[in-house]
Amino acid sequence: MNKKSSTPVDEPHLSIPGLAATLVACGACKRRNSAERGLHLTGRAAIYVVLDKLTSLLFPGCHGHAPIPAIHASDHIAAELTEIAATLQKQIKLAFQYQCEFDHCRDCGDCRRKAVSATQNLLQAMPAIKRTLELDITAAYEGDPAARSTMEVVMSYPGLLAIMTHRIAHELYTADVPLIPRILSEHAHSQTGIDIHPGAKIGPGFFIDHGTGVVIGETCVIGKRVKIYQGVTLGALSFPKDAHGHLIKGNKRHPNVEDHVTIYAGATILGGDTTIGAGSEIGGNVWLTHSIPPGSRVYNQQPKPLIRTREVKKS
Amino acid sequence: MNKKSSTPVDEPHLSIPGLAATLVACGACKRRNSAERGLHLTGRAAIYVVLDKLTSLLFPGCHGHAPIPAIHASDHIAAELTEIAATLQKQIKLAFQYQCEFDHCRDCGDCRRKAVSATQNLLQAMPAIKRTLELDITAAYEGDPAARSTMEVVMSYPGLLAIMTHRIAHELYTADVPLIPRILSEHAHSQTGIDIHPGAKIGPGFFIDHGTGVVIGETCVIGKRVKIYQGVTLGALSFPKDAHGHLIKGNKRHPNVEDHVTIYAGATILGGDTTIGAGSEIGGNVWLTHSIPPGSRVYNQQPKPLIRTREVKKS
Amino acid sequence: MNKKSSTPVDEPHLSIPGLAATLVACGACKRRNSAERGLHLTGRAAIYVVLDKLTSLLFPGCHGHAPIPAIHASDHIAAELTEIAATLQKQIKLAFQYQCEFDHCRDCGDCRRKAVSATQNLLQAMPAIKRTLELDITAAYEGDPAARSTMEVVMSYPGLLAIMTHRIAHELYTADVPLIPRILSEHAHSQTGIDIHPGAKIGPGFFIDHGTGVVIGETCVIGKRVKIYQGVTLGALSFPKDAHGHLIKGNKRHPNVEDHVTIYAGATILGGDTTIGAGSEIGGNVWLTHSIPPGSRVYNQQPKPLIRTREVKKS
Repeated sequence: MNKKSSTPVDEPHLSIPGLAATLVACGACKRRNSAERGLHLTGRAAIYVVLDKLTSLLFPGCHGHAPIPAIHASDHIAAELTEIAATLQKQIKLAFQYQCEFDHCRDCGDCRRKAVSATQNLLQAMPAIKRTLELDITAAYEGDPAARSTMEVVMSYPGLLAIMTHRIAHELYTADVPLIPRILSEHAHSQTGIDIHPGAKIGPGFFIDHGTGVVIGETCVIGKRVKIYQGVTLGALSFPKDAHGHLIKGNKRHPNVEDHVTIYAGATILGGDTTIGAGSEIGGNVWLTHSIPPGSRVYNQQPKPLIRTREVKKS
Repeated sequence: MNKKSSTPVDEPHLSIPGLAATLVACGACKRRNSAERGLHLTGRAAIYVVLDKLTSLLFPGCHGHAPIPAIHASDHIAAELTEIAATLQKQIKLAFQYQCEFDHCRDCGDCRRKAVSATQNLLQAMPAIKRTLELDITAAYEGDPAARSTMEVVMSYPGLLAIMTHRIAHELYTADVPLIPRILSEHAHSQTGIDIHPGAKIGPGFFIDHGTGVVIGETCVIGKRVKIYQGVTLGALSFPKDAHGHLIKGNKRHPNVEDHVTIYAGATILGGDTTIGAGSEIGGNVWLTHSIPPGSRVYNQQPKPLIRTREVKKS
Repeated sequence: MNKKSSTPVDEPHLSIPGLAATLVACGACKRRNSAERGLHLTGRAAIYVVLDKLTSLLFPGCHGHAPIPAIHASDHIAAELTEIAATLQKQIKLAFQYQCEFDHCRDCGDCRRKAVSATQNLLQAMPAIKRTLELDITAAYEGDPAARSTMEVVMSYPGLLAIMTHRIAHELYTADVPLIPRILSEHAHSQTGIDIHPGAKIGPGFFIDHGTGVVIGETCVIGKRVKIYQGVTLGALSFPKDAHGHLIKGNKRHPNVEDHVTIYAGATILGGDTTIGAGSEIGGNVWLTHSIPPGSRVYNQQPKPLIRTREVKKS
């Protein structure tokens, strides 16, 4: 940043302290109240740092700046894990405290206990997550003619980044951690264009190719060895409201996709009662709002374009 | 970076100074000339830093690394605002100077005056922007069954990031600041996949869900409480050229969307004469190039996919 | 990061050293073996830094934090180039060594020679890349009614960022550098939503507008002055397998697009035998899997939406 930033600015008409007071006062919501009571929120950027460290441990040397000396790999990873555990537990505790405050329960001893438990659950799940990711990597390598090596998949494929983040976020979602699962999944969304809600249940050997524009909703259940291309939506068909006209939250509203299904680019599959049977293939741009049996091939009669040919101008 | 980077590299066939001279000399454009006269351009990364600081002030503690102590919140924000004002004014002045140079007017006193004015306008608008964003946050919370709290919206929703950046960029666009509004909007585009030109006029209570692939053109006018899903384009229908065959710049070429309209995923709405009447609902993948009256529901007969079912291989 | 991160965490049930050992041991793949032999992989973040430095040199003052003093521009660029050359050569050597190890040849003298050669080739190509990018910039300025100046294109257009990165990545792809070309192209994909495989051959004057969701496959061949909009796919039609049921890698499977073609948003063009003749125009959402002659206009009969109008509720 600019060293001279403390130099006075021309501000004949602007009162900085007045503006600051207005900004602090103008939020009418819960958030402001929390801030006034000194409740420190989970900072988004701090969560991103923890995620980067966690993923570095899954694939040492691949995602960071510096190589890890192989001879000390285990010690190095243990030291990193200790630091990650402390930061993660602190952030998760803040998130539980925010929720607790929001619900007026103020049971902060309970928040701490839940944070310890959620942190340990996630760390203990890391070896299993790593094993599942190895199956995802194999699926990408075997499913993409452009993949030169599994290492290329690890170091560059956005689909792997998205599923890796998802498998971590889903673990925290399952432990009912507020805010953080969605911060993680939206971080992956930002980096990859792939939007997987942390609530989605996704089996091993999952491969998303290209991926930009993919949306996978909160209550999706996806089987083993499923392959999805860019622009696929697994979404909700309707948004039922309660007696007060508010959307009902938390009901099953996204599809099920069974094992060994492939869904090509731009397909839209909607509804909580919709199940794509095992081994099916869904073609590009297909729009589907009902179940199909196992082993189906579903294709659009693509619209026949009108072709008119004229003289070409040379240039 | 690598500590050993000053170690000589094998370069029998490569002359670094020659290559540097060629790189400096080979631009034939205005940009090179400016650089030679010592006019320092606005660095893109510096603008991103100012944006991050501004958005941190709108939602203290949510987007940064560290919490803000509530008891000093007002003082803290005043100190940040002073620094932001100085940096912003400097960057805006550089942008006006670039434009001034480009137009051969060289009236730098005027550039400075315009920079002071644009900076103050933006800062004074921040409380109003914050109030409008509160309505955007409410719209997101009420419009998405997956949203658990308004805080989740603040901390993770890409649609909020996009509209927050847009409301700031639009203020600078209105003050005719060159370069910076588009740098801001493209920064949000990069983070969210949502491409809103800073010229678009957008009312309060605006919610974009998922958002990847959304395009909103420069001359769009969007009313209150409008909801848009991923992949929606509000674009131009044709590109009229002048007598020299050059595209005409700046004419009205993007649609109007009135209050309380919902546009579902993948819809394409084109043309400056196209108006979507208040309260209308536009279905997924609809292609629309003419106006529709208030209260319309517009749906595609989705193409009926061909379904063939075969034996499933077990594995 | 948190200063207190070394403070002990509650971990009655968690053994950090045991977890670390499990994480190091649980990869069954080649990658783990390499790490154990002390072969340091190319870190992804280190590659991003080199790319940022290279692009800063192409457009001095535009992309970084600080302006470059014009009077010393040539010296400054020479110093930067020396540092870039050293880092790049080191990273490329690591990538060749990884591949070499993978192929069990262990001929590291050869790796070093290939790294020197690939680094020099890329640096020597930079002036030509810069000249081609000037044509890309002009095409963007002339092709977009919203573009106010070529400088706006340089400082904010995602299409330019994508093609700039591609032209650098393609040079390394041509020199058979493993891993790094794809790391570069996926970095641009992450920032822009535009996925161009580094193998694609793309002529000068290339302009992608908006760009989110664009996919350009490995074996595409694209002519001069081609214009592409968001959501366009130039992809593979089928995935032939060998006798063992594995996908065949490296065959020609993506389309050819000749000079002066425009492809509008959401069009899908598939297959290695598909050629779009010079001067053609492909309309929005068109699905095309066969060649068309020069000078063709290809348009969809867009589906006619059903419009029903009801009473509007005022609010």
